[in-house]
Amino acid sequence: MCVPGCQEAVARQLSRRSLFKSAAATAAAFSALPVAGAFATTTSFSKVVDLTHVLDPSFPTFFGKPQLEIRKLFSFEKDGFNLNEWVVNEHTGTHLDTPFHFSKDGPSAEQLPIDTLVVPLAVIDVSAKATANPDYQLTAEDIAAYEAANGKLPPGAAVALYSGWDKLVATDKFRNADAAGTLHFPGFHPDVAAVLIEKGASGVVVDTLSLDYGASKDFAFHYKWLGSGHWGVEAASNLGTLPAKGATLVVGGPKIKGASGGPSRVLALV
Amino acid sequence: MCVPGCQEAVARQLSRRSLFKSAAATAAAFSALPVAGAFATTTSFSKVVDLTHVLDPSFPTFFGKPQLEIRKLFSFEKDGFNLNEWVVNEHTGTHLDTPFHFSKDGPSAEQLPIDTLVVPLAVIDVSAKATANPDYQLTAEDIAAYEAANGKLPPGAAVALYSGWDKLVATDKFRNADAAGTLHFPGFHPDVAAVLIEKGASGVVVDTLSLDYGASKDFAFHYKWLGSGHWGVEAASNLGTLPAKGATLVVGGPKIKGASGGPSRVLALV
Repeated sequence: MCVPGCQEAVARQLSRRSLFKSAAATAAAFSALPVAGAFATTTSFSKVVDLTHVLDPSFPTFFGKPQLEIRKLFSFEKDGFNLNEWVVNEHTGTHLDTPFHFSKDGPSAEQLPIDTLVVPLAVIDVSAKATANPDYQLTAEDIAAYEAANGKLPPGAAVALYSGWDKLVATDKFRNADAAGTLHFPGFHPDVAAVLIEKGASGVVVDTLSLDYGASKDFAFHYKWLGSGHWGVEAASNLGTLPAKGATLVVGGPKIKGASGGPSRVLALV
Repeated sequence: MCVPGCQEAVARQLSRRSLFKSAAATAAAFSALPVAGAFATTTSFSKVVDLTHVLDPSFPTFFGKPQLEIRKLFSFEKDGFNLNEWVVNEHTGTHLDTPFHFSKDGPSAEQLPIDTLVVPLAVIDVSAKATANPDYQLTAEDIAAYEAANGKLPPGAAVALYSGWDKLVATDKFRNADAAGTLHFPGFHPDVAAVLIEKGASGVVVDTLSLDYGASKDFAFHYKWLGSGHWGVEAASNLGTLPAKGATLVVGGPKIKGASGGPSRVLALV
Protein backbone atom coordinates (compact mmCIF):
# COMPACT_ATOMS: atom_id res chain seq x y z
CA MET A 1 0.00 0.00 0.00
CA CYS A 2 1.30 3.44 -0.83
CA VAL A 3 1.66 6.22 1.71
CA PRO A 4 -0.89 9.03 1.20
CA GLY A 5 -0.40 10.66 -2.15
CA CYS A 6 1.87 7.94 -3.38
CA GLN A 7 -0.57 6.64 -5.97
CA GLU A 8 -0.60 10.01 -7.70
CA ALA A 9 3.17 10.13 -7.60
CA VAL A 10 3.37 6.66 -9.08
CA ALA A 11 0.94 7.58 -11.83
CA ARG A 12 3.03 10.63 -12.63
CA GLN A 13 6.19 8.58 -12.58
CA LEU A 14 4.77 5.99 -14.91
CA SER A 15 4.62 8.59 -17.65
CA ARG A 16 8.38 8.96 -17.33
CA ARG A 17 9.13 5.30 -17.85
CA SER A 18 10.07 5.51 -21.51
CA LEU A 19 12.33 8.41 -20.67
CA PHE A 20 14.11 6.45 -17.96
CA LYS A 21 14.49 3.41 -20.15
CA SER A 22 16.11 5.39 -22.90
CA ALA A 23 18.55 7.02 -20.50
CA ALA A 24 19.31 3.62 -18.98
CA ALA A 25 20.55 2.40 -22.35
CA THR A 26 23.10 5.21 -22.34
CA ALA A 27 24.24 4.35 -18.84
CA ALA A 28 24.92 0.77 -19.88
CA ALA A 29 28.15 2.05 -21.45
CA PHE A 30 29.55 2.45 -17.91
CA SER A 31 30.93 -0.63 -16.29
CA ALA A 32 30.53 -1.09 -12.54
CA LEU A 33 33.54 0.30 -10.74
CA PRO A 34 34.40 -0.89 -7.27
CA VAL A 35 34.58 1.87 -4.70
CA ALA A 36 37.48 1.56 -2.32
CA GLY A 37 38.14 2.62 1.26
CA ALA A 38 40.22 5.74 1.49
CA PHE A 39 41.85 5.40 4.90
CA ALA A 40 45.33 3.97 4.86
CA THR A 41 46.46 6.58 7.38
CA THR A 42 45.18 8.10 10.58
CA THR A 43 42.30 10.55 10.50
CA SER A 44 41.59 13.03 13.28
CA PHE A 45 38.63 15.16 14.29
CA SER A 46 37.53 17.32 17.18
CA LYS A 47 33.94 18.18 16.21
CA VAL A 48 30.90 16.39 14.81
CA VAL A 49 28.53 18.23 12.45
CA ASP A 50 25.10 16.77 11.72
CA LEU A 51 24.29 16.99 8.00
CA THR A 52 20.86 15.40 8.44
CA HIS A 53 17.50 17.17 8.28
CA VAL A 54 14.78 16.22 10.75
CA LEU A 55 12.41 13.97 8.80
CA ASP A 56 8.65 14.02 9.29
CA PRO A 57 5.73 13.23 6.97
CA SER A 58 5.70 16.81 5.68
CA PHE A 59 9.30 16.70 4.45
CA PRO A 60 9.41 17.84 0.80
CA THR A 61 9.87 15.15 -1.85
CA PHE A 62 10.92 15.09 -5.47
CA PHE A 63 7.47 14.03 -6.61
CA GLY A 64 5.72 16.45 -4.28
CA LYS A 65 3.75 13.86 -2.32
CA PRO A 66 4.40 12.55 1.21
CA GLN A 67 6.76 9.55 1.37
CA LEU A 68 6.64 8.83 5.09
CA GLU A 69 3.78 7.65 7.27
CA ILE A 70 4.31 7.15 10.99
CA ARG A 71 1.94 4.70 12.69
CA LYS A 72 1.87 4.65 16.48
CA LEU A 73 1.58 1.02 17.61
CA PHE A 74 2.14 1.51 21.35
CA SER A 75 2.08 4.54 23.63
CA PHE A 76 3.65 5.02 27.05
CA GLU A 77 0.40 6.18 28.61
CA LYS A 78 -1.57 3.15 27.50
CA ASP A 79 1.06 0.47 27.13
CA GLY A 80 4.07 1.50 29.21
CA PHE A 81 6.30 2.15 26.20
CA ASN A 82 6.33 4.09 22.93
CA LEU A 83 6.79 2.34 19.57
CA ASN A 84 5.92 3.26 15.98
CA GLU A 85 6.22 1.67 12.60
CA TRP A 86 6.99 3.61 9.47
CA VAL A 87 5.90 3.28 5.87
CA VAL A 88 8.74 4.99 4.11
CA ASN A 89 9.98 5.39 0.56
CA GLU A 90 13.71 4.69 0.27
CA HIS A 91 14.34 8.14 -1.21
CA THR A 92 12.99 10.35 1.55
CA GLY A 93 14.64 13.01 3.70
CA THR A 94 18.43 13.15 3.88
CA HIS A 95 19.12 9.86 2.15
CA LEU A 96 21.51 7.57 0.33
CA ASP A 97 21.30 6.75 -3.37
CA THR A 98 23.07 3.45 -4.07
CA PRO A 99 24.44 2.30 -7.44
CA PHE A 100 21.47 -0.13 -7.58
CA HIS A 101 19.02 2.80 -7.69
CA PHE A 102 20.00 3.54 -11.30
CA SER A 103 21.48 0.27 -12.51
CA LYS A 104 20.36 -3.28 -13.14
CA ASP A 105 22.71 -5.00 -10.73
CA GLY A 106 24.93 -2.44 -9.06
CA PRO A 107 25.55 -2.70 -5.29
CA SER A 108 22.50 -2.15 -3.11
CA ALA A 109 22.73 -0.58 0.36
CA GLU A 110 23.92 -3.64 2.27
CA GLN A 111 26.65 -4.27 -0.32
CA LEU A 112 28.48 -0.96 0.13
CA PRO A 113 31.42 -1.65 2.47
CA ILE A 114 31.49 0.65 5.47
CA ASP A 115 34.90 2.06 4.59
CA THR A 116 33.47 3.40 1.33
CA LEU A 117 30.94 5.38 3.38
CA VAL A 118 33.49 7.05 5.66
CA VAL A 119 35.60 9.17 3.33
CA PRO A 120 37.33 12.54 2.92
CA LEU A 121 34.86 15.29 2.04
CA ALA A 122 35.43 18.08 -0.46
CA VAL A 123 32.85 20.87 -0.31
CA ILE A 124 32.41 22.96 -3.45
CA ASP A 125 30.55 26.20 -2.83
CA VAL A 126 28.35 27.15 -5.77
CA SER A 127 25.85 29.01 -3.59
CA ALA A 128 26.37 32.37 -5.30
CA LYS A 129 25.89 30.83 -8.76
CA ALA A 130 22.85 28.87 -7.60
CA THR A 131 21.27 31.94 -6.04
CA ALA A 132 21.71 33.78 -9.32
CA ASN A 133 20.54 30.79 -11.38
CA PRO A 134 18.49 28.05 -9.69
CA ASP A 135 19.12 25.82 -12.75
CA TYR A 136 22.88 25.97 -12.20
CA GLN A 137 24.78 22.75 -12.89
CA LEU A 138 28.16 22.20 -11.23
CA THR A 139 30.76 21.82 -14.01
CA ALA A 140 34.23 20.43 -14.60
CA GLU A 141 35.44 24.03 -14.31
CA ASP A 142 34.09 24.17 -10.75
CA ILE A 143 36.07 21.02 -9.93
CA ALA A 144 39.20 22.56 -11.48
CA ALA A 145 38.74 25.79 -9.51
CA TYR A 146 38.28 23.79 -6.33
CA GLU A 147 41.50 21.86 -6.94
CA ALA A 148 43.41 25.03 -7.81
CA ALA A 149 42.46 26.48 -4.43
CA ASN A 150 42.53 23.34 -2.27
CA GLY A 151 44.75 20.80 -3.98
CA LYS A 152 43.79 17.53 -5.65
CA LEU A 153 40.73 15.65 -4.50
CA PRO A 154 41.92 12.93 -2.12
CA PRO A 155 41.48 9.29 -3.19
CA GLY A 156 37.98 7.98 -2.54
CA ALA A 157 36.64 11.44 -1.74
CA ALA A 158 33.03 12.46 -1.54
CA VAL A 159 32.36 15.70 -3.40
CA ALA A 160 29.61 17.90 -2.00
CA LEU A 161 27.75 20.55 -3.95
CA TYR A 162 26.90 23.31 -1.50
CA SER A 163 24.12 25.46 -2.93
CA GLY A 164 22.51 26.77 0.27
CA TRP A 165 19.26 25.01 -0.67
CA ASP A 166 19.04 23.39 2.78
CA LYS A 167 17.93 26.74 4.23
CA LEU A 168 14.86 26.62 1.94
CA VAL A 169 13.65 23.22 3.16
CA ALA A 170 10.58 24.60 4.95
CA THR A 171 9.53 26.67 1.93
CA ASP A 172 8.15 26.04 -1.55
CA LYS A 173 11.48 27.27 -2.92
CA PHE A 174 13.07 23.96 -1.93
CA ARG A 175 11.27 22.19 -4.80
CA ASN A 176 10.83 25.50 -6.63
CA ALA A 177 8.26 24.14 -9.09
CA ASP A 178 7.14 26.39 -11.93
CA ALA A 179 3.61 26.55 -13.35
CA ALA A 180 4.31 23.53 -15.56
CA GLY A 181 5.53 21.48 -12.58
CA THR A 182 9.20 21.60 -13.58
CA LEU A 183 11.52 21.87 -10.59
CA HIS A 184 14.29 24.45 -10.41
CA PHE A 185 17.24 23.76 -8.16
CA PRO A 186 20.95 23.17 -8.85
CA GLY A 187 22.72 19.83 -9.37
CA PHE A 188 25.72 18.10 -10.91
CA HIS A 189 26.19 18.48 -14.68
CA PRO A 190 26.19 15.03 -16.34
CA ASP A 191 29.66 15.63 -17.82
CA VAL A 192 31.08 15.89 -14.29
CA ALA A 193 30.48 12.18 -13.69
CA ALA A 194 33.37 11.19 -15.96
CA VAL A 195 35.64 13.77 -14.33
CA LEU A 196 34.90 12.46 -10.83
CA ILE A 197 35.30 8.86 -11.95
CA GLU A 198 38.70 9.69 -13.44
CA LYS A 199 39.69 11.33 -10.15
CA GLY A 200 38.66 8.29 -8.11
CA ALA A 201 35.85 9.88 -6.11
CA SER A 202 33.51 7.52 -4.21
CA GLY A 203 30.39 9.59 -3.72
CA VAL A 204 28.67 12.91 -4.17
CA VAL A 205 26.45 14.95 -1.86
CA VAL A 206 23.81 17.57 -2.66
CA ASP A 207 21.66 19.77 -0.44
CA THR A 208 18.77 19.53 -2.91
CA LEU A 209 16.26 16.80 -3.80
CA SER A 210 18.27 15.31 -6.69
CA LEU A 211 21.85 14.75 -7.83
CA ASP A 212 20.74 16.10 -11.22
CA TYR A 213 19.47 19.65 -11.41
CA GLY A 214 15.73 19.96 -10.87
CA ALA A 215 14.86 20.65 -14.49
CA SER A 216 16.69 17.56 -15.79
CA LYS A 217 14.56 15.53 -18.16
CA ASP A 218 16.79 12.47 -18.35
CA PHE A 219 18.48 12.05 -14.94
CA ALA A 220 21.74 11.77 -16.88
CA PHE A 221 24.04 12.38 -13.91
CA HIS A 222 22.21 9.70 -11.89
CA TYR A 223 22.68 7.17 -14.68
CA LYS A 224 26.33 7.99 -15.26
CA TRP A 225 27.36 8.26 -11.61
CA LEU A 226 25.25 5.64 -9.82
CA GLY A 227 25.31 3.41 -12.89
CA SER A 228 29.11 3.26 -12.69
CA GLY A 229 29.14 1.92 -9.12
CA HIS A 230 29.18 5.15 -7.10
CA TRP A 231 26.83 6.51 -4.45
CA GLY A 232 25.15 9.81 -3.69
CA VAL A 233 23.52 11.59 -0.77
CA GLU A 234 20.54 13.86 -1.40
CA ALA A 235 18.95 16.55 0.79
CA ALA A 236 21.94 17.05 3.07
CA SER A 237 21.97 19.97 5.49
CA ASN A 238 24.65 22.23 6.98
CA LEU A 239 27.21 21.79 4.19
CA GLY A 240 27.80 25.53 4.39
CA THR A 241 29.24 25.19 7.89
CA LEU A 242 32.03 22.87 6.75
CA PRO A 243 35.56 23.66 5.57
CA ALA A 244 36.23 23.23 1.85
CA LYS A 245 38.63 20.40 2.68
CA GLY A 246 39.74 18.37 5.67
CA ALA A 247 36.39 17.04 6.95
CA THR A 248 35.50 13.35 6.92
CA LEU A 249 32.02 12.35 5.76
CA VAL A 250 30.16 9.52 7.50
CA VAL A 251 27.15 8.20 5.58
CA GLY A 252 25.11 6.22 8.10
CA GLY A 253 23.10 4.55 5.38
CA PRO A 254 20.67 1.67 5.94
CA LYS A 255 22.06 -1.86 5.74
CA ILE A 256 18.81 -3.26 4.35
CA LYS A 257 19.06 -6.07 1.81
CA GLY A 258 18.30 -4.98 -1.73
CA ALA A 259 17.72 -1.35 -0.77
CA SER A 260 18.21 1.18 -3.55
CA GLY A 261 18.94 3.73 -0.85
CA GLY A 262 17.26 4.98 2.27
CA PRO A 263 16.98 7.65 4.94
CA SER A 264 20.42 7.98 6.51
CA ARG A 265 22.20 9.70 9.35
CA VAL A 266 24.84 11.74 7.59
CA LEU A 267 27.51 13.58 9.53
CA ALA A 268 30.90 15.19 9.16
CA LEU A 269 33.91 14.74 11.44
CA VAL A 270 35.84 18.01 11.40
CA MET B 1 -1.59 -2.02 8.92
CA CYS B 2 0.85 -4.38 10.58
CA VAL B 3 3.56 -6.25 8.77
CA PRO B 4 2.88 -9.99 8.49
CA GLY B 5 2.66 -11.54 11.92
CA CYS B 6 2.48 -8.21 13.67
CA GLN B 7 -1.11 -8.69 14.83
CA GLU B 8 -0.10 -11.76 16.77
CA ALA B 9 2.83 -9.93 18.29
CA VAL B 10 0.59 -7.04 19.27
CA ALA B 11 -1.92 -9.40 20.85
CA ARG B 12 0.88 -11.04 22.78
CA GLN B 13 2.23 -7.68 23.80
CA LEU B 14 -1.14 -6.46 25.00
CA SER B 15 -1.06 -9.08 27.72
CA ARG B 16 2.09 -7.43 29.04
CA ARG B 17 0.55 -4.02 29.38
CA SER B 18 -0.15 -4.15 33.11
CA LEU B 19 3.40 -5.37 33.62
CA PHE B 20 4.85 -2.47 31.65
CA LYS B 21 2.65 0.07 33.43
CA SER B 22 3.76 -1.14 36.85
CA ALA B 23 7.43 -0.98 35.86
CA ALA B 24 6.86 2.48 34.40
CA ALA B 25 5.77 3.76 37.78
CA THR B 26 9.14 2.67 39.19
CA ALA B 27 11.00 4.40 36.39
CA ALA B 28 9.27 7.68 37.19
CA ALA B 29 11.68 8.07 40.11
CA PHE B 30 14.42 8.85 37.56
CA SER B 31 14.53 12.39 36.26
CA ALA B 32 15.55 13.03 32.67
CA LEU B 33 19.29 13.59 32.48
CA PRO B 34 20.80 15.46 29.58
CA VAL B 35 23.38 13.50 27.66
CA ALA B 36 26.42 15.50 26.73
CA GLY B 37 28.97 15.37 23.90
CA ALA B 38 32.23 13.83 24.93
CA PHE B 39 34.70 15.38 22.52
CA ALA B 40 36.58 18.35 23.84
CA THR B 41 39.81 17.01 22.41
CA THR B 42 40.99 15.48 19.18
CA THR B 43 40.03 11.90 18.33
CA SER B 44 41.92 9.78 15.83
CA PHE B 45 41.22 6.58 13.95
CA SER B 46 42.71 4.52 11.16
CA LYS B 47 40.04 1.85 10.64
CA VAL B 48 36.25 1.66 10.40
CA VAL B 49 34.41 -1.41 11.75
CA ASP B 50 30.79 -2.02 10.80
CA LEU B 51 28.73 -3.06 13.83
CA THR B 52 25.53 -3.40 11.79
CA HIS B 53 23.84 -6.64 10.76
CA VAL B 54 22.35 -6.92 7.28
CA LEU B 55 18.60 -6.45 7.76
CA ASP B 56 16.01 -8.35 5.76
CA PRO B 57 12.44 -9.47 6.50
CA SER B 58 13.71 -12.69 8.09
CA PHE B 59 15.83 -10.90 10.71
CA PRO B 60 14.97 -12.27 14.18
CA THR B 61 12.83 -10.06 16.43
CA PHE B 62 12.07 -9.93 20.13
CA PHE B 63 8.46 -10.91 19.55
CA GLY B 64 9.36 -13.57 17.03
CA LYS B 65 7.39 -12.14 14.13
CA PRO B 66 8.69 -10.26 11.06
CA GLN B 67 8.99 -6.49 11.55
CA LEU B 68 10.09 -5.48 8.06
CA GLU B 69 8.25 -5.66 4.76
CA ILE B 70 9.96 -4.50 1.57
CA ARG B 71 7.65 -3.42 -1.26
CA LYS B 72 9.16 -2.96 -4.70
CA LEU B 73 7.58 0.13 -6.28
CA PHE B 74 9.83 0.46 -9.35
CA SER B 75 12.27 -1.88 -11.06
CA PHE B 76 15.14 -1.08 -13.41
CA GLU B 77 13.94 -3.53 -16.05
CA LYS B 78 10.44 -2.08 -16.26
CA ASP B 79 10.90 1.50 -15.11
CA GLY B 80 14.55 2.40 -15.62
CA PHE B 81 15.31 2.61 -11.90
CA ASN B 82 14.93 0.58 -8.70
CA LEU B 83 12.98 1.89 -5.70
CA ASN B 84 11.28 0.23 -2.73
CA GLU B 85 9.28 1.34 0.23
CA TRP B 86 9.52 -0.32 3.64
CA VAL B 87 7.03 -1.03 6.37
CA VAL B 88 9.30 -1.25 9.36
CA ASN B 89 8.95 -1.40 13.11
CA GLU B 90 11.27 1.06 14.85
CA HIS B 91 12.88 -1.73 16.87
CA THR B 92 14.14 -3.97 14.09
CA GLY B 93 17.64 -5.11 13.17
CA THR B 94 20.64 -3.29 14.60
CA HIS B 95 18.75 -0.33 16.04
CA LEU B 96 18.62 2.60 18.40
CA ASP B 97 16.49 2.74 21.56
CA THR B 98 15.85 6.36 22.54
CA PRO B 99 14.85 7.63 26.00
CA PHE B 100 11.35 8.16 24.57
CA HIS B 101 10.96 4.41 24.00
CA PHE B 102 10.54 3.83 27.75
CA SER B 103 9.48 7.24 29.06
CA LYS B 104 6.55 9.60 28.72
CA ASP B 105 8.45 12.56 27.32
CA GLY B 106 12.14 11.73 27.07
CA PRO B 107 14.06 12.71 23.91
CA SER B 108 12.97 10.96 20.73
CA ALA B 109 15.38 10.17 17.91
CA GLU B 110 15.52 13.61 16.32
CA GLN B 111 16.18 15.22 19.71
CA LEU B 112 19.42 13.39 20.47
CA PRO B 113 22.25 15.77 19.51
CA ILE B 114 24.73 14.20 17.14
CA ASP B 115 27.65 14.64 19.53
CA THR B 116 25.90 12.37 22.03
CA LEU B 117 25.86 9.66 19.35
CA VAL B 118 29.60 9.81 18.58
CA VAL B 119 31.28 8.80 21.83
CA PRO B 120 34.14 6.77 23.32
CA LEU B 121 33.31 3.06 23.40
CA ALA B 122 34.11 0.65 26.24
CA VAL B 123 33.66 -3.03 25.36
CA ILE B 124 33.06 -5.40 28.28
CA ASP B 125 33.57 -9.02 27.31
CA VAL B 126 31.18 -11.31 29.16
CA SER B 127 31.16 -13.92 26.40
CA ALA B 128 32.53 -16.73 28.56
CA LYS B 129 29.96 -16.08 31.28
CA ALA B 130 27.15 -15.81 28.72
CA THR B 131 28.19 -19.04 27.03
CA ALA B 132 28.08 -20.79 30.41
CA ASN B 133 24.81 -19.08 31.39
CA PRO B 134 22.57 -17.59 28.68
CA ASP B 135 20.64 -15.75 31.40
CA TYR B 136 23.76 -13.90 32.52
CA GLN B 137 23.26 -10.26 33.53
CA LEU B 138 26.22 -7.88 33.39
CA THR B 139 26.82 -6.56 36.94
CA ALA B 140 28.46 -3.67 38.75
CA GLU B 141 31.33 -6.09 39.43
CA ASP B 142 31.87 -6.47 35.67
CA ILE B 143 32.11 -2.67 35.39
CA ALA B 144 34.58 -2.56 38.27
CA ALA B 145 36.71 -5.31 36.72
CA TYR B 146 36.68 -3.45 33.41
CA GLU B 147 37.87 -0.24 35.07
CA ALA B 148 40.55 -2.09 37.05
CA ALA B 149 41.99 -3.41 33.79
CA ASN B 150 41.34 -0.42 31.50
CA GLY B 151 41.01 2.68 33.65
CA LYS B 152 37.92 4.75 34.36
CA LEU B 153 35.14 4.95 31.80
CA PRO B 154 35.66 8.14 29.82
CA PRO B 155 33.02 10.90 30.14
CA GLY B 156 30.00 10.32 27.92
CA ALA B 157 31.09 6.79 27.07
CA ALA B 158 28.99 4.09 25.52
CA VAL B 159 29.35 0.76 27.30
CA ALA B 160 29.00 -2.34 25.16
CA LEU B 161 28.13 -5.79 26.47
CA TYR B 162 29.91 -8.28 24.24
CA SER B 163 28.34 -11.71 24.62
CA GLY B 164 29.12 -13.25 21.24
CA TRP B 165 25.40 -13.53 20.50
CA ASP B 166 25.85 -11.83 17.11
CA LYS B 167 27.32 -15.07 15.76
CA LEU B 168 24.01 -16.82 16.49
CA VAL B 169 21.88 -14.38 14.48
CA ALA B 170 21.03 -16.92 11.76
CA THR B 171 20.03 -19.58 14.29
CA ASP B 172 17.20 -20.18 16.77
CA LYS B 173 19.75 -19.70 19.55
CA PHE B 174 19.69 -15.94 18.91
CA ARG B 175 16.23 -15.71 20.54
CA ASN B 176 16.80 -18.98 22.40
CA ALA B 177 13.15 -19.43 23.37
CA ASP B 178 12.26 -22.26 25.72
CA ALA B 179 9.09 -24.36 25.52
CA ALA B 180 7.17 -21.70 27.45
CA GLY B 181 8.28 -18.97 25.04
CA THR B 182 10.68 -17.31 27.49
CA LEU B 183 13.82 -16.00 25.81
CA HIS B 184 17.29 -16.77 27.11
CA PHE B 185 20.10 -14.39 26.25
CA PRO B 186 22.29 -12.08 28.35
CA GLY B 187 21.72 -8.41 29.15
CA PHE B 188 22.43 -5.58 31.59
CA HIS B 189 21.39 -6.13 35.21
CA PRO B 190 18.94 -3.40 36.29
CA ASP B 191 21.24 -2.30 39.14
CA VAL B 192 23.92 -1.37 36.60
CA ALA B 193 21.81 1.55 35.36
CA ALA B 194 22.54 3.61 38.48
CA VAL B 195 26.24 2.75 38.27
CA LEU B 196 26.48 3.91 34.66
CA ILE B 197 24.48 7.05 35.39
CA GLU B 198 26.85 7.91 38.24
CA LYS B 199 29.80 7.40 35.91
CA GLY B 200 28.33 9.72 33.27
CA ALA B 201 27.86 7.17 30.49
CA SER B 202 25.70 8.23 27.51
CA GLY B 203 24.61 4.92 26.02
CA VAL B 204 24.84 1.16 26.10
CA VAL B 205 25.19 -1.42 23.34
CA VAL B 206 24.19 -5.09 23.29
CA ASP B 207 24.62 -7.80 20.66
CA THR B 208 21.28 -9.38 21.63
CA LEU B 209 17.63 -8.44 21.05
CA SER B 210 17.18 -6.50 24.32
CA LEU B 211 19.11 -4.33 26.78
CA ASP B 212 17.54 -6.47 29.52
CA TYR B 213 18.32 -10.17 29.59
CA GLY B 214 15.90 -12.26 27.58
CA ALA B 215 14.06 -13.72 30.55
CA SER B 216 13.32 -10.32 32.11
CA LYS B 217 9.69 -9.98 33.08
CA ASP B 218 9.74 -6.27 33.84
CA PHE B 219 12.23 -4.61 31.44
CA ALA B 220 13.71 -2.94 34.51
CA PHE B 221 17.00 -1.94 32.87
CA HIS B 222 15.10 -0.36 29.97
CA TYR B 223 12.99 1.73 32.36
CA LYS B 224 15.91 2.83 34.51
CA TRP B 225 18.34 3.55 31.70
CA LEU B 226 16.18 4.92 28.89
CA GLY B 227 13.80 6.47 31.40
CA SER B 228 16.66 8.56 32.78
CA GLY B 229 17.49 10.16 29.44
CA HIS B 230 20.02 7.68 28.01
CA TRP B 231 20.06 5.64 24.81
CA GLY B 232 20.81 2.07 23.82
CA VAL B 233 21.71 0.07 20.73
CA GLU B 234 20.37 -3.47 20.33
CA ALA B 235 21.47 -6.29 18.02
CA ALA B 236 24.92 -4.91 17.29
CA SER B 237 27.44 -7.09 15.48
CA ASN B 238 31.22 -7.46 15.53
CA LEU B 239 31.77 -6.12 19.07
CA GLY B 240 34.20 -9.00 19.59
CA THR B 241 36.57 -7.55 17.00
CA LEU B 242 37.02 -4.28 18.92
CA PRO B 243 39.57 -3.29 21.55
CA ALA B 244 38.29 -3.03 25.14
CA LYS B 245 38.99 0.69 25.05
CA GLY B 246 40.04 3.35 22.57
CA ALA B 247 37.40 2.93 19.85
CA THR B 248 34.84 5.62 19.04
CA LEU B 249 31.23 4.56 18.52
CA VAL B 250 29.12 6.23 15.82
CA VAL B 251 25.38 5.60 16.13
CA GLY B 252 23.90 6.53 12.78
CA GLY B 253 20.39 6.61 14.17
CA PRO B 254 17.33 7.87 12.29
CA LYS B 255 16.49 11.58 12.64
CA ILE B 256 12.77 10.94 12.35
CA LYS B 257 10.46 13.15 14.38
CA GLY B 258 8.94 11.41 17.38
CA ALA B 259 10.76 8.13 16.72
CA SER B 260 11.26 5.88 19.74
CA GLY B 261 14.24 4.41 17.93
CA GLY B 262 14.93 2.88 14.56
CA PRO B 263 17.19 0.79 12.38
CA SER B 264 20.59 2.45 12.45
CA ARG B 265 24.01 2.25 10.87
CA VAL B 266 26.30 1.64 13.80
CA LEU B 267 30.05 1.67 13.39
CA ALA B 268 33.26 1.98 15.32
CA LEU B 269 36.25 4.17 14.49
CA VAL B 270 39.35 2.37 15.72
